[in-house]
Amino acid sequence: MIVVENVIKDNSISKERKMQLKVKILNIDSGGKPVVFLNDKDADELNITASERVIVQAKKKITAIINISQTIEKGFLGATEEIRKLLALKQNSKVSVDIAPFPKSLQFIRNKLSGKKLLYPEIREIVQDLVDGNLSENEISAFVTALHIDKIDLDEATSLSRSMIDTGKTLNINKKIIVDKHSVGGVPGDKTTLLVVPIIASEGFTIPKTSSRAITSVAGTADRAEVLMPVEFTTNKMVQILNKSNGCIVWGGAIELAPADDLFVKAEFSLHIDPLLLPSIMSKKKAGGATHLIVDIPTGRGAKMKTTGEGDLLARDIIELGRRLGIHTHCILTFGEQPIGNSIGPALEAKEALEVLMNQKNVPDLINKACSIAGSMFELLGKKDGFGLAKKILESGKAEQKMRQIIKAQGGDALIKPEDILIGKHLMSVSAKKSGQVLWMENRIIVEIGRAAGAPKDKGAGIVFNKKLGERVEKGELLFTIYAEKSHKLDRVKYILSSRSPIGIGKRSDMLIHKITESPVVDRTFVIDR
Amino acid sequence: MIVVENVIKDNSISKERKMQLKVKILNIDSGGKPVVFLNDKDADELNITASERVIVQAKKKITAIINISQTIEKGFLGATEEIRKLLALKQNSKVSVDIAPFPKSLQFIRNKLSGKKLLYPEIREIVQDLVDGNLSENEISAFVTALHIDKIDLDEATSLSRSMIDTGKTLNINKKIIVDKHSVGGVPGDKTTLLVVPIIASEGFTIPKTSSRAITSVAGTADRAEVLMPVEFTTNKMVQILNKSNGCIVWGGAIELAPADDLFVKAEFSLHIDPLLLPSIMSKKKAGGATHLIVDIPTGRGAKMKTTGEGDLLARDIIELGRRLGIHTHCILTFGEQPIGNSIGPALEAKEALEVLMNQKNVPDLINKACSIAGSMFELLGKKDGFGLAKKILESGKAEQKMRQIIKAQGGDALIKPEDILIGKHLMSVSAKKSGQVLWMENRIIVEIGRAAGAPKDKGAGIVFNKKLGERVEKGELLFTIYAEKSHKLDRVKYILSSRSPIGIGKRSDMLIHKITESPVVDRTFVIDR
Repeated sequence: MIVVENVIKDNSISKERKMQLKVKILNIDSGGKPVVFLNDKDADELNITASERVIVQAKKKITAIINISQTIEKGFLGATEEIRKLLALKQNSKVSVDIAPFPKSLQFIRNKLSGKKLLYPEIREIVQDLVDGNLSENEISAFVTALHIDKIDLDEATSLSRSMIDTGKTLNINKKIIVDKHSVGGVPGDKTTLLVVPIIASEGFTIPKTSSRAITSVAGTADRAEVLMPVEFTTNKMVQILNKSNGCIVWGGAIELAPADDLFVKAEFSLHIDPLLLPSIMSKKKAGGATHLIVDIPTGRGAKMKTTGEGDLLARDIIELGRRLGIHTHCILTFGEQPIGNSIGPALEAKEALEVLMNQKNVPDLINKACSIAGSMFELLGKKDGFGLAKKILESGKAEQKMRQIIKAQGGDALIKPEDILIGKHLMSVSAKKSGQVLWMENRIIVEIGRAAGAPKDKGAGIVFNKKLGERVEKGELLFTIYAEKSHKLDRVKYILSSRSPIGIGKRSDMLIHKITESPVVDRTFVIDR
Repeated sequence: MIVVENVIKDNSISKERKMQLKVKILNIDSGGKPVVFLNDKDADELNITASERVIVQAKKKITAIINISQTIEKGFLGATEEIRKLLALKQNSKVSVDIAPFPKSLQFIRNKLSGKKLLYPEIREIVQDLVDGNLSENEISAFVTALHIDKIDLDEATSLSRSMIDTGKTLNINKKIIVDKHSVGGVPGDKTTLLVVPIIASEGFTIPKTSSRAITSVAGTADRAEVLMPVEFTTNKMVQILNKSNGCIVWGGAIELAPADDLFVKAEFSLHIDPLLLPSIMSKKKAGGATHLIVDIPTGRGAKMKTTGEGDLLARDIIELGRRLGIHTHCILTFGEQPIGNSIGPALEAKEALEVLMNQKNVPDLINKACSIAGSMFELLGKKDGFGLAKKILESGKAEQKMRQIIKAQGGDALIKPEDILIGKHLMSVSAKKSGQVLWMENRIIVEIGRAAGAPKDKGAGIVFNKKLGERVEKGELLFTIYAEKSHKLDRVKYILSSRSPIGIGKRSDMLIHKITESPVVDRTFVIDR
């Protein structure tokens, strides 16, 4: 509508628009994000504020997030390791800096903050910018918070799943049927996968299981498996392993099936929210090529899902999301109010799983859970009495045989014996102060103790329980033993046990749960491992 | 219920629990927050994840937020300037590090994320931890996002106001009546305060006006006032000024009435949300001791409040919050669809205000708005025909006289003339391409141009409009002129003007606003200045 007529009264407009700065190498990294430090006066001159972006140009050009700093001299640009590498910068070399527009994805995040449902291209853009490091901590956090409060619906979950697949690697396994299992987690001691994978694989099905390491828990399946064999492989190597053994148990982090997820987890972690649960699970399964999937939903007090109602609703969404992504999915709700089996901690759990595979030990709840999952998969694939079939495979020693084949294919010792597994040498035993029945076990405190003892980092740290729910206990009887690799870590365990207990002994008629006398500081269980 | 019996099988538990690290001075600051950098292996050993906290102990003990880094060697703790100063650390000195519990306030934030209304002691704890630097960027962002999505209610707004007052300084002025004004902002060129303060003060009322600098706008009132006089003072000095002149116009940032607000703004800024608007305004007014307050709510397309309905609801909340804090508050809705007066930019606006105060220039909308605000205050204080009284004070020269008294009290040149004010020497003029009427002015683009020209940093940069809404324009007639201190900044202005216009010329019968042919990338006006 208007025409610009440049009436330059004074002098001609200079060609140079950008600010020229000298590089100061900071020798610190910024966690993968392209971050630069600018003096506050230079930032003022550019008219920018913290968490805005600048375009930094040396031989190449990149967009970086600003940190405003008083320790960087005026005229200098503080370069983190990420920036130094990306632009091949040297101390005192020159760069030009210019204000950059906000990324388009930020407007989509803002739309979400005002309650708008996001469409696929918008979510795709957000996830791409997330993976590329173009979003600040602040912005990622706001997005995750909005997804949590507004609840992501199934359309958004589908878009997020697809975007997370698009921005990661995929496994290409040349099989018509690829099966997988997943647990939404939250129960300590859940070494079920170490039984399920060999049971299913020994029936000839391909199961490319990727697992996570512990974030908030005592052990992730990758931590447990690593006690028996290497777990870090490339996608190519993983396909080779599967060709040998039909099954594998590898660390998903190395495979990079959905790298966006780790970045979301980082934001969710301290907030104790996980709106990305559904897309996180399903994107990785789809990227792994799964056609058939069983999802285990541990349910009950102290588990991620507190009630069966809640669990059923989650199952509904998982199954529908599976349908949209082309994965035939069934879910099972399992009892999650106490640890699975008796042992907790990477090495102790690997040992217990191996003993059960070798039929050396009877751990009823662990065996029941493993056969329920493997059996459900068999039934999803059209077989009758899946549970019975799974149990038979386990009892026959075929599962052990398959597991040793997998261990070998992944480069472990195929002849490993339970007693070869190293357990922490420092022990602390806890006995009952009174007689009664085990009325409750508190997963949260169990996790706290296991981590204080050194797990998951110290693989030999953990807990072995001698009593579980409903069992009779006599005064002075052994309840549990804590193992640590480093003696000083037991000090912290002792401190925790001085005020809290992971296990409650009493009479069935004891009715009081606890008293509230003033506004309580609620401290809920939170499990982000997925 | 249980007793801990320590059956130490191996060796006695060592007393040493904490990790010992050597200090590496990083020579960078982290924006006021206590941040330390840890090698990923040391973090693993401590079982901590990014954005958790550690207790760092040297001679003193503090809690710091963790950055996990691969550039820090194992065995070292990277210390930012904040940490170095707080603990008086030296290169290679030794500190002990231990995992710290999450701050209690973080659980309150989590409660907010699950939809709980927060109580005063909880909000107080959050604001305290915010001010003390104990909350991570991630957590502050989640809190602000939750307040935005869930809407803070008046109880929470009251608690936030009180907490922000508690954690800042307060002004102690020994007067029974203390008056104040505030504008929620959003309209460019709003130099009204420069008229309102002297009008009110010349009637003998005390008006301790604190103002902000521009964040997203072309000029904040503090930026405008600074063209005429110094604006940075301590609270003590501010009281001395008020004793001399009854009124003042100082920068609120230096006074630190509600330091929490700046930290909230930092989180809100790139997200384009401002749920803290109400507590932000009212806490500063209360901390300043206000007993009577007029709040101006510019309303209309391109202003912060788009409709009168929205504006009225905001007014309702402001008045009620005022009642709860003991401030007698009235609000006025004002027309906000175009700039106030003809000039935009700190120096140009200060000049225009001075010319009006000196009755050298008639700027009808500016005078009308100033007299509406001052008049409303006079009526709130019990006077009749406030508007008429305000106008009389302005026309009589009493307001100019009072303004010169204020300028002198704040250390400026009391004899300053409009022509003494330095305006940018580089000009670009824009003329109409066709004849018609001014149908719209777009505040957002006006702001963008003003900032591109260098404002608020370059005080002499800005825009002067020759035409405003409804005025008749002939083809080739001058519409506006852009002023810059640095010629290269006009390049960016030219770039903006090549695709967008701040002013629309057409016929009253032109009906089309704009066309949408595919999913639009919405880019709303956002104003955080408050």
